[in-house]
Amino acid sequence: MLLSYLRKRRILFLFVPLGHSFEIRLTGTKYGCGGGGCGACTVMISTYEPASKKIRHYSANACLLPICSLYGAAVTTVEGVGSTKTRVHPVQERLAKCHGSQCGFCTPGMVMSIYTLLRNYPEPTSEQMMAALAGNLCRCTGYRPILDACKTFCKVSSDDKNTRLFELKIRENSWSLLVFFLFKVSTRLFSTDEFQPLDPTQELIFPPELMRMAENQPKRTLFFHGERMTWISPVSLDELLDLKAAHPKAPLVVGNTSVGPEMKFRGVFHPIVIAPARIPDLNVVKRMDDGLTLGAACSLSLVKDILTNAISEYPEEKTKVFCAVLQQLRTLGGEQIRNVASLGGNIISRKSTSDLNPILAASNCMLNLASRGGKRQIPLSDVFADGVGNNIITPEEILVSVYIPHSRKGDYVSAFRQAPRRENALPITNAGMRVLFEEGTDLIKDLSIFYGGAVSTTICAKQTCGTLIGRHWNEQMLDEACRLILKEIALPGSPSGEKVDYKKILVVSFFYRFFLEVLQSLRTMDPCRYPGIPMEYRSVLQDFKTKIPQSIQIYQAKPSQSPQDPVGRPIMHQSGIKHATGEAVYIDDLPSVDGELFLAVVTSSRAHAKIVSIDTSEALKGPGVFDIITAHDVPATNEFYYSDGPEIIFARNKVICVGQIVCAVVADSDIHAKQAAAKVKIEYEVLEPVILTIEEAIKHNSFFEPKRKLEHGNVDQAFETVDNIIEGEIHIGGQEHFYMETQSVLAVPIGEDKEMDVYVSTQHPAIIQEMVAASLGVPANRIMCHVKRVGGAFGGKLLKAGLLASVAAVAANKTSRAVRLILSRGDDMLITGGRHPFIGKYKVSATRIQGKSTCPYSVNKSFSVTG
Amino acid sequence: MLLSYLRKRRILFLFVPLGHSFEIRLTGTKYGCGGGGCGACTVMISTYEPASKKIRHYSANACLLPICSLYGAAVTTVEGVGSTKTRVHPVQERLAKCHGSQCGFCTPGMVMSIYTLLRNYPEPTSEQMMAALAGNLCRCTGYRPILDACKTFCKVSSDDKNTRLFELKIRENSWSLLVFFLFKVSTRLFSTDEFQPLDPTQELIFPPELMRMAENQPKRTLFFHGERMTWISPVSLDELLDLKAAHPKAPLVVGNTSVGPEMKFRGVFHPIVIAPARIPDLNVVKRMDDGLTLGAACSLSLVKDILTNAISEYPEEKTKVFCAVLQQLRTLGGEQIRNVASLGGNIISRKSTSDLNPILAASNCMLNLASRGGKRQIPLSDVFADGVGNNIITPEEILVSVYIPHSRKGDYVSAFRQAPRRENALPITNAGMRVLFEEGTDLIKDLSIFYGGAVSTTICAKQTCGTLIGRHWNEQMLDEACRLILKEIALPGSPSGEKVDYKKILVVSFFYRFFLEVLQSLRTMDPCRYPGIPMEYRSVLQDFKTKIPQSIQIYQAKPSQSPQDPVGRPIMHQSGIKHATGEAVYIDDLPSVDGELFLAVVTSSRAHAKIVSIDTSEALKGPGVFDIITAHDVPATNEFYYSDGPEIIFARNKVICVGQIVCAVVADSDIHAKQAAAKVKIEYEVLEPVILTIEEAIKHNSFFEPKRKLEHGNVDQAFETVDNIIEGEIHIGGQEHFYMETQSVLAVPIGEDKEMDVYVSTQHPAIIQEMVAASLGVPANRIMCHVKRVGGAFGGKLLKAGLLASVAAVAANKTSRAVRLILSRGDDMLITGGRHPFIGKYKVSATRIQGKSTCPYSVNKSFSVTG
Repeated sequence: MLLSYLRKRRILFLFVPLGHSFEIRLTGTKYGCGGGGCGACTVMISTYEPASKKIRHYSANACLLPICSLYGAAVTTVEGVGSTKTRVHPVQERLAKCHGSQCGFCTPGMVMSIYTLLRNYPEPTSEQMMAALAGNLCRCTGYRPILDACKTFCKVSSDDKNTRLFELKIRENSWSLLVFFLFKVSTRLFSTDEFQPLDPTQELIFPPELMRMAENQPKRTLFFHGERMTWISPVSLDELLDLKAAHPKAPLVVGNTSVGPEMKFRGVFHPIVIAPARIPDLNVVKRMDDGLTLGAACSLSLVKDILTNAISEYPEEKTKVFCAVLQQLRTLGGEQIRNVASLGGNIISRKSTSDLNPILAASNCMLNLASRGGKRQIPLSDVFADGVGNNIITPEEILVSVYIPHSRKGDYVSAFRQAPRRENALPITNAGMRVLFEEGTDLIKDLSIFYGGAVSTTICAKQTCGTLIGRHWNEQMLDEACRLILKEIALPGSPSGEKVDYKKILVVSFFYRFFLEVLQSLRTMDPCRYPGIPMEYRSVLQDFKTKIPQSIQIYQAKPSQSPQDPVGRPIMHQSGIKHATGEAVYIDDLPSVDGELFLAVVTSSRAHAKIVSIDTSEALKGPGVFDIITAHDVPATNEFYYSDGPEIIFARNKVICVGQIVCAVVADSDIHAKQAAAKVKIEYEVLEPVILTIEEAIKHNSFFEPKRKLEHGNVDQAFETVDNIIEGEIHIGGQEHFYMETQSVLAVPIGEDKEMDVYVSTQHPAIIQEMVAASLGVPANRIMCHVKRVGGAFGGKLLKAGLLASVAAVAANKTSRAVRLILSRGDDMLITGGRHPFIGKYKVSATRIQGKSTCPYSVNKSFSVTG
Repeated sequence: MLLSYLRKRRILFLFVPLGHSFEIRLTGTKYGCGGGGCGACTVMISTYEPASKKIRHYSANACLLPICSLYGAAVTTVEGVGSTKTRVHPVQERLAKCHGSQCGFCTPGMVMSIYTLLRNYPEPTSEQMMAALAGNLCRCTGYRPILDACKTFCKVSSDDKNTRLFELKIRENSWSLLVFFLFKVSTRLFSTDEFQPLDPTQELIFPPELMRMAENQPKRTLFFHGERMTWISPVSLDELLDLKAAHPKAPLVVGNTSVGPEMKFRGVFHPIVIAPARIPDLNVVKRMDDGLTLGAACSLSLVKDILTNAISEYPEEKTKVFCAVLQQLRTLGGEQIRNVASLGGNIISRKSTSDLNPILAASNCMLNLASRGGKRQIPLSDVFADGVGNNIITPEEILVSVYIPHSRKGDYVSAFRQAPRRENALPITNAGMRVLFEEGTDLIKDLSIFYGGAVSTTICAKQTCGTLIGRHWNEQMLDEACRLILKEIALPGSPSGEKVDYKKILVVSFFYRFFLEVLQSLRTMDPCRYPGIPMEYRSVLQDFKTKIPQSIQIYQAKPSQSPQDPVGRPIMHQSGIKHATGEAVYIDDLPSVDGELFLAVVTSSRAHAKIVSIDTSEALKGPGVFDIITAHDVPATNEFYYSDGPEIIFARNKVICVGQIVCAVVADSDIHAKQAAAKVKIEYEVLEPVILTIEEAIKHNSFFEPKRKLEHGNVDQAFETVDNIIEGEIHIGGQEHFYMETQSVLAVPIGEDKEMDVYVSTQHPAIIQEMVAASLGVPANRIMCHVKRVGGAFGGKLLKAGLLASVAAVAANKTSRAVRLILSRGDDMLITGGRHPFIGKYKVSATRIQGKSTCPYSVNKSFSVTG
């Protein structure tokens, strides 16, 4: 992937015989999640199309972008945008000066998203800005100051120009002064006067070498052979069909946003990958009389643009399908995902999480397929007809293009989705619905309802639709429909009952919303016959859009305060500029030490079990594997008792939770370490009790001592005498810390007396020093704990960071090598605690007050709360 | 060379595609001088001879030992002898506990010399111990405590067993107590009770793989191809003669103690090197009726052993040549040199500095030569007959073996040498002399006198010898001889008159000593006729041998002192054990940082000149060259004014001394950096005055201000009135610091705000921090100066270390890479100051005291001293 290439790629000094190599180390691009979910690794990709002579700039997540897919492309990282050594770019400057960075770990990604937008639209609208940042997470700065910086680049639309200008003016000056004199607080967080102007003529040009290459080199098939994989990029459909016939199991990969995470996180392995992005047939964009044909390799961004244009050009009645598809595209992934993910990929690879399939299937879209055997066109809905998946498409067949029809008169089309967060998250459930009425009536002539997320594939509520044909669009139909849908879309219950109830509610709610939308639309057709929906329901129909927050921040500095006194003033973060230029060094940005090893942990897959045996033989045979570290290698303390329970470095004989570290592999690269870690075989013997929930813990009387209990007054006596007792429970779910920078340690043995430099992302260097020293059995002064900065922590980088530092230090001590331990996001969430879920029980006594009727009780001062 | 292989050799992780490599980093073996002069890099080499089934262990200087010459050999470094992680070897333990380490830089070499001796002689004599350490320099510990440790291993000879035991006993216990009670001081520096015993059965065995290889593999010619060189090691004489015919210019290299330094220090380059060490003909040892034939590849140690044995077996009159040769061998190099240097090499390569040629030539030794053209035998003396060198041997010819004759009855043979230090230093002048008398007389029948070191080759005092034939061995002959020798051995005057006078004195003195020796020997023949030499001259004849020092160290600790209170007690050096195990980390032992560059300085070759131009074009083209750093790259301060004159980082427009740093090359390896540095062309325009001596400085009134002057009393008045004035000058020569560890810096940029970690071998971290910060123009708190330990300094690692740290820091700042600067010994002596030479003038007034005759003056209290 481009991310590891940028951050870690070793470059050979070619002139030295024995491979003296070093890393490129463009570490401004950060690893946040590795799955395209956080945007910390955003870069700008630029490509040149010799036919149109157009250069396309787009943002992308480096963590999912295969380096092989970048043949002929230019990559701009945050280092290329600007640096303190050359010139700080206005985007970087304003983000820093507008206080748009706190831990700074998300900042380079933010910079790249804004920068890419400005390359394409030097004066974007605030909507464009919001959309550009939808794929970027920030966990500590908060979005307000980031957007404050963005707004300084935005075009002020003619409508609100005066208002905006006024607003800006008063914000900057007079209003600020007024507010200050009235309330003794200030709101002027930065001064736009000192900002450099954005000058698009000063940006980096597209490399002329690449331009020449694109113009002069005939396109030819590219083969890239890696350690285990081959990447083939053909240039003609014929060739592609041959390849697919030869390698029917090989996936087609365009943006790698489906196959990539599958390989990274779910252990799927493809020895051959076919990249069809350069084949003209798969990039076709054809407007026809009755619809649009779009190549399967078209990016979702391109699809979005094409549909947006089409909507503005065609009459409204023809564009209802387009609008519904566009509705899904707006929140399907962030800009970085949509820029690379392909239309075909979303249809073929996404299975039940495709946000497009339900609406495309409901809208009678057609797939143009091809194989050595010939071409054919099938309705997308056929793919989901059997309810188990797309085996109607044979392994040799490929999707060439998709036909999206115009809507017909009388068509009502809508799409819905619900995700854990609105933008850039996979849907929990989604839907596409279309209804066609007998002309001039509300009698259902044709109805299509497709759901995603409910079962393992997109599913059609076929029987429901069939049953409802001929019915009026009214509440009786609605009642019937809901009943039928719930029956037909039988959600499989998971053992933990995960989200089933929620999904059921969504499935029905989506139809209810569709019902209301259509009802309201019928009214516009004939307001007399169709009254529409009551006023109080109308808000349901409003499209929810994220808006730029309008909040302000105030601060207080005494008028008598010296200008040099920073207390209370909005001073730029000391590292603000470096955050924005990517020069701020976090743990994994530290250059590698000679002979450095990478550590991958092997964690328990059982909640409570005896470790019968650990078989490391296969793992030790893995390429690049250096050693395996277990509890036996800990020279001194393996268990710590700081707070509630024991904190254990390596499980010794038993495991007490899933994700507990059992052992660790050190190898010459993170990939090799992780590959080997997966090969360690641990045999368990499950121990009772297995406690997975708080309720089970209470049942087994398994408490962290001391038990938490708040009591006030003479509780026992009060509960006996009072008129009324109010009791109840409060449940609060657990919560991941999700600091942007995962747990990171670099342990460097000094080479004598077990002295060690330990570089850790932690909030508590002293405890790290103490724990590492204890684990190695040396005085604390032998351990130097270095903390330059932390990419977010939220309380999550204390004891767990100490355990992980000890893991690395024990490995470094055993191997006499520097050891780097950077948790993957998945391991981080698995291993570290986060905030526990919580149950609180309360019991309050109340006594009736004579003569009062509205609230006849006075709550006694006796109560009991346990948690 | 083995040294850089051990310390820096990058090993590829072979399984990783792009050459992930790391260093072996056996850094216990130290770089001290690079020329076999200091022994800091001593290792043990073990070889196995399948014919004799004998394993030979010998010490060698890793700095001169070509890795190609070690095919089939096992190398034991200090890490292999013992470590704190495994077992500390008794040699290491005792050296540490007997306080045999201070800066610790020479200690691993000491360990290896002692260890190798003990492998061969588990109970050595103290003479063997002294000889084993003759090639190891120590600059700060002092040899007494080192030898204290050694003595604990030495055999107590039956003669002095009782004494020694007694001595040991009293030293350890009773005497110690007695001394303490009498004088309140202690002499017991360590307790032998706690020493582990030496157990030869526990040593590392010779690797069985190598043994099998030696036994089973047929010997075949080896070719090693490097970046610029080819090393060919043939196995038969025929093959060797072919090679020599094909490559007449290629030198034959056995121990590399002549060709090595020539290539390293004098820029001689040989694209092909032939290593004849494995050819049986060149290793022959043949005893004949009239002498010995020894193969040219025999090591000097082997020759020494053979001659020692021969002397003990043959009658005295036959062994006078052997004795004289042995006399030279004893101090010719240290054990490490003699173990690898060959007899043939000393004869052929050493030119005027061969200690063997004069005595071998004087003794009628014969050389057995061979070439494609045939074999022939010539007298060695013929080689020096013309007084200009050995062009009697053709380039195609090789020296196969040397015939050393027995002495004849009436032969008197002696050899002499004088070197800057007795052992392990090249001679200033040496000589070999032989006289044969008419039987029963003191009439000279034959006389041979050869000198080395006088001119560019060994030279024969032929005419002198011819003239003196027939003369009696008496004072008249001596007078005549001295006159003739001085005339014949015309020493060329060097421009600086270097050592010519001294050499003249030596040339005559050697003959004078020979005269006395022979005179005394004649007396033993016939004491009546030959009275021998006067008693007071006899000490001249004594052989000067270095003996184990018998001094003791005393210390004082109050009787009331708590046992925990270390003040005044002989506590082992905190790092003592680590010094001895090689685990103590010095600057150049720090692991390399990813992308690290090596820096080589380019220094002025002029004492006072304007820099007209610096041409770096050729240097920049060199392999691995990254950049060239000049004064223009210094962000801020380039000149410092701390004491007398300016201290300049890089010369900007002019140079003010030879060795001043003008610019620096950074490259991927020290070799590449040094190669490129040699290619930088600097054009100078000499400026007047050129001041090379103190006298010239005085003449040009060029003083370091303030002038040093001590005055007492009313000087002017006193000098006018006193009876007598005593005036004079004191001259003191300059002195190199010669700390064992050369100046060393590793500058590691942190990556932001010009923050830098600077690891320096210095006595004054604060000034380094200050100078580096000033040169980079940053606050001092951005610079972290790390000093763990220093391998000697003696005042030499203050300002100069600061300048060198600034050189490295400026380079690191410019390149954003870590930069390592380790001065070679030559550069270190060239660049750093040492103690200046000194002239002091004094003028003292004295007044005559009436009535006193022995010392009629009282020195007045008025005096003036300037320096």
